[in-house]
Amino acid sequence: MVNVSHIITLLTDFGTQDTYVGVMKGVITTICPQATVIDLTHEVPPQDIATGAFLLDISVDYFPQGTVHVAVVDPGVGTERKPIAIQTDKAFFVGPDNGIFTLVLHRYRMLLAVQLDNPKYHLPHTSTTFHGRDIFAPVAAHMASGVPPEELGTPITRLQRLPLPRIRVEWQGIRATVVHIDRFGNAITNLTHADYQSWCARWDVKEPIVRIGQGDILLTIHRTYGDVPVGQPLALFSSSGRLEIAVNGGSAQQTFGLRRGDVVWVLRREESPPPRVQRSLNLG
Amino acid sequence: MVNVSHIITLLTDFGTQDTYVGVMKGVITTICPQATVIDLTHEVPPQDIATGAFLLDISVDYFPQGTVHVAVVDPGVGTERKPIAIQTDKAFFVGPDNGIFTLVLHRYRMLLAVQLDNPKYHLPHTSTTFHGRDIFAPVAAHMASGVPPEELGTPITRLQRLPLPRIRVEWQGIRATVVHIDRFGNAITNLTHADYQSWCARWDVKEPIVRIGQGDILLTIHRTYGDVPVGQPLALFSSSGRLEIAVNGGSAQQTFGLRRGDVVWVLRREESPPPRVQRSLNLG
Amino acid sequence: MVNVSHIITLLTDFGTQDTYVGVMKGVITTICPQATVIDLTHEVPPQDIATGAFLLDISVDYFPQGTVHVAVVDPGVGTERKPIAIQTDKAFFVGPDNGIFTLVLHRYRMLLAVQLDNPKYHLPHTSTTFHGRDIFAPVAAHMASGVPPEELGTPITRLQRLPLPRIRVEWQGIRATVVHIDRFGNAITNLTHADYQSWCARWDVKEPIVRIGQGDILLTIHRTYGDVPVGQPLALFSSSGRLEIAVNGGSAQQTFGLRRGDVVWVLRREESPPPRVQRSLNLG
Repeated sequence: MVNVSHIITLLTDFGTQDTYVGVMKGVITTICPQATVIDLTHEVPPQDIATGAFLLDISVDYFPQGTVHVAVVDPGVGTERKPIAIQTDKAFFVGPDNGIFTLVLHRYRMLLAVQLDNPKYHLPHTSTTFHGRDIFAPVAAHMASGVPPEELGTPITRLQRLPLPRIRVEWQGIRATVVHIDRFGNAITNLTHADYQSWCARWDVKEPIVRIGQGDILLTIHRTYGDVPVGQPLALFSSSGRLEIAVNGGSAQQTFGLRRGDVVWVLRREESPPPRVQRSLNLG
Repeated sequence: MVNVSHIITLLTDFGTQDTYVGVMKGVITTICPQATVIDLTHEVPPQDIATGAFLLDISVDYFPQGTVHVAVVDPGVGTERKPIAIQTDKAFFVGPDNGIFTLVLHRYRMLLAVQLDNPKYHLPHTSTTFHGRDIFAPVAAHMASGVPPEELGTPITRLQRLPLPRIRVEWQGIRATVVHIDRFGNAITNLTHADYQSWCARWDVKEPIVRIGQGDILLTIHRTYGDVPVGQPLALFSSSGRLEIAVNGGSAQQTFGLRRGDVVWVLRREESPPPRVQRSLNLG
Repeated sequence: MVNVSHIITLLTDFGTQDTYVGVMKGVITTICPQATVIDLTHEVPPQDIATGAFLLDISVDYFPQGTVHVAVVDPGVGTERKPIAIQTDKAFFVGPDNGIFTLVLHRYRMLLAVQLDNPKYHLPHTSTTFHGRDIFAPVAAHMASGVPPEELGTPITRLQRLPLPRIRVEWQGIRATVVHIDRFGNAITNLTHADYQSWCARWDVKEPIVRIGQGDILLTIHRTYGDVPVGQPLALFSSSGRLEIAVNGGSAQQTFGLRRGDVVWVLRREESPPPRVQRSLNLG
């Protein structure tokens, strides 16, 4: 059982040109003056739930036990999708039931999920377009003030899950997918270092190569950017422990035109991929 | 009489690429270590006082009583325009006397306004170009520390007001103006739900239509974005209670080329607008 | 001897579209819950150490004694460059030893510098690509919690310095360099008001002129933007006390195509510059 902390994080697609985020903080501080609010990011591409799920997933580990994470990427606001709160063995989560918590629920054990149908913990007048302000911010503030999740609404057991790309592991290689391009133009995939290591160990792979695009570009896996000359591309495991395509001092996104959804293969050096694999490259 | 809180908000056009905002927070925390500083936004378009006034207006309600709101969109910095502080029945305001408080002063009752001419509460060396750092931040910090407004300078009674667009209400319709385009491309007008309802009630209007541009585009007022299919336009009342033009899952700004200052009509469904009204459309 | 405060500032080139900065704050608050974290900026151009050094330099004065300033613009992360912490008579600094502290070390007296080689104060698993999260954030949090710098690692005495442009002062004028373009398009040079005044005093200069570009554009030094009509260019001393080229209500960057590294001359009004000086203009 984890106790709630007074830390609340916010992850949204609201941007910072409007005062949407500032207003959420006003609501939180009105209800819970002792809360410490930390911005994860507000520049999730508009209504891009998958990117929100990824960025939340790689961040939660670095916060204190019992942190309340509010995630609002919410194209379905005001429709049938449920507002929810989730208690896990690491942290609390508040947001829409649209799959944004899919990845963190792979990582942490869910102890309780509730539909936020107790209006006592919402703002008195709830809009149909800004649940971040009217439901999620006040609920998070009440949680950080010590209101137990079971007070917030009716328990539910089935949550929406996002159909996210999965890695495919075979003898000759691992098929991964670019899931995020960061500020520096680094292309981060869904292949974790743990999955990579277990493939290497299971099939005795040594020094595999990384192939992007239609197969013309082959990269070696390095330890850090500075291991190759400035301007040169490389593969490495990112700070979040995922396989990443980068250019030292440059942008892999610009150099290779990489986009989210592109396929990246990690392959045995001694083998060329069998035909079945090459065909699947076109499905990226 | 409202007591000051330790909450200070900042709304500026300083952007976040420089350290102007960070430096204001350094000044505040030096003077008032217990202050909690919340960013409303720093991306007001450079020197756009009207947008600053609008964004402040829709935000203040969501903060605790006695919050100190600092608003610095200040093309006249260093010239004759006065630096001021205002006490109202809801909150305190600090910034230049250039009209940026016009809208909040429609909403809250002014109890006292002072010209900030007591240098005891400024930084020792005051620049001519950055009153945000040298006057407004230290004054706000001293207010949040309990210094009463009357200590800060000489009372004044006449404040600058911005000539903002007003709605025009007639039997056949309401002429509103787009006052803000948000991050999602939603076009928000100056027509409040209260004014809309009183028009409907007074003249027995049922299910009016919303007309944008030269009259080709007619929209129905819905409850929320998801009430129309993805990609379809709609009108609705925004989270700030203003009539808004939106596209579900898209951008009304891009779809219709809407800009601030554009005219939007809410019209009786059974009537076409009389000629006098159509002419005025060109004046938008 | 300055005591550490609980204020930690962050200056990075991480941007705000990812959660890199939010994660650093999670690490800090886990180690030092009482810390107050203030963003200086996260939009230093990627890997632009010189801009980071400038923005840090003009900001530190406005923070309390003993503030811990974390600066991470770090193209060499994971290579031989050392992670360091510095104690001065004003503040503490944490970041890579790549020259980013060059300018603040001109201004404040260094009391101690250490290489951060004590892993006790790092995260348990240190990546090769994100020392901001794994070394600099935890070290800053431990410092703000009272850990003395000498605990953090091995003392060092030689630090990397950046080869930054210097002003050239002569009888007939001062050659300065644009070192930063701010959000408003103001071009800020490396000429401080103190250096300007000592030149004026030493050689009895009255009302000099400012020349930008190849000599076609001559400006007068004013007190503030509003001293010239809207749309007109001017020179003035910026809020950070540096000579600045600006356009009232506009952008000097756009008007004159100014860029970082461009040369600006302050010249005696009564003299044209001697040939030796004109030639050096082409070396800008």
